[in-house]
Amino acid sequence: MIKGSLSVFIVLVALTCSTAKPDEKPMKKEKMKPQTLSRGWGDQLIWAQTYEEALFWARSRNKPLMIIFHLSDCPHSQALKKAFASDETIQNLADKDFILLNLVFETTDQHLSPDGQYVPRILFVDPSMTVRADIVGRYSNRMYAYEPSDMKLLLSNMQKAKMFVKAEL
Amino acid sequence: MIKGSLSVFIVLVALTCSTAKPDEKPMKKEKMKPQTLSRGWGDQLIWAQTYEEALFWARSRNKPLMIIFHLSDCPHSQALKKAFASDETIQNLADKDFILLNLVFETTDQHLSPDGQYVPRILFVDPSMTVRADIVGRYSNRMYAYEPSDMKLLLSNMQKAKMFVKAEL
Repeated sequence: MIKGSLSVFIVLVALTCSTAKPDEKPMKKEKMKPQTLSRGWGDQLIWAQTYEEALFWARSRNKPLMIIFHLSDCPHSQALKKAFASDETIQNLADKDFILLNLVFETTDQHLSPDGQYVPRILFVDPSMTVRADIVGRYSNRMYAYEPSDMKLLLSNMQKAKMFVKAEL
Repeated sequence: MIKGSLSVFIVLVALTCSTAKPDEKPMKKEKMKPQTLSRGWGDQLIWAQTYEEALFWARSRNKPLMIIFHLSDCPHSQALKKAFASDETIQNLADKDFILLNLVFETTDQHLSPDGQYVPRILFVDPSMTVRADIVGRYSNRMYAYEPSDMKLLLSNMQKAKMFVKAEL
């Protein structure tokens, strides 16, 4: 019974940010650092630029795609980014077995927002182009949200996404 | 008559690359430099990441969008990039009056390939979301291709794209 209760979804209270207002375009400084594709989620990882590109790589390399929706001015996104970028196990698994995409702007594919558009939110897409809406976090009202304390769950979900692809071969 | 002949389109002979094979995903090195959004087309400029994002900024800031399609392993793209990045007048105008996007992967919007998918190719989109298929380079068989020697024409086309927006106000 105690173990069973672990699988009960927790309701997330205001730990995500709305995407109604996208990031402000960065203000130009005197000498700007070039913007990176990683945006701080892992400078040593290879990131796709667009959803179309990411889908192409997922299909051609038969790897699951991991999409991180975030906003630079959202404190919950920032906190998750810090945990994600500093977690070596996750970074290594992401590097080895995933096609990676982080987006500050929504795509037109509604399958990528099964329960709404909010950030941070992480979705997996398998190489057959199916959004894995079944791979969820622990919050029943924001099913694809993760907190910094959810890194073990995220790792387990990444393994689930990877196993599914292997099992299909 | 002599002046008139200047407006005659020239046929471009193999000065563009096909996009049939997109860029190879960059190979991981021991210590990789983070990928940049500029990809060398102007590190000091602000670049949109995706077409959707670029359209959003074009509309909300009432600025024309300039899209550069290129490939990192295409020598003609590389040559144009070098000329583009080192042309101060173009860089300043791009910075001040344009929403910028460079893509190594085609979008699903067929309006962005009026005469085919090739690189390098530069298209303008006005803030009302209309692709300016009328703003062309000098090659009749690759109407949106530019060579390093075409920087004056590109500048003039940027001014045309900008003037059209101002005139519409």
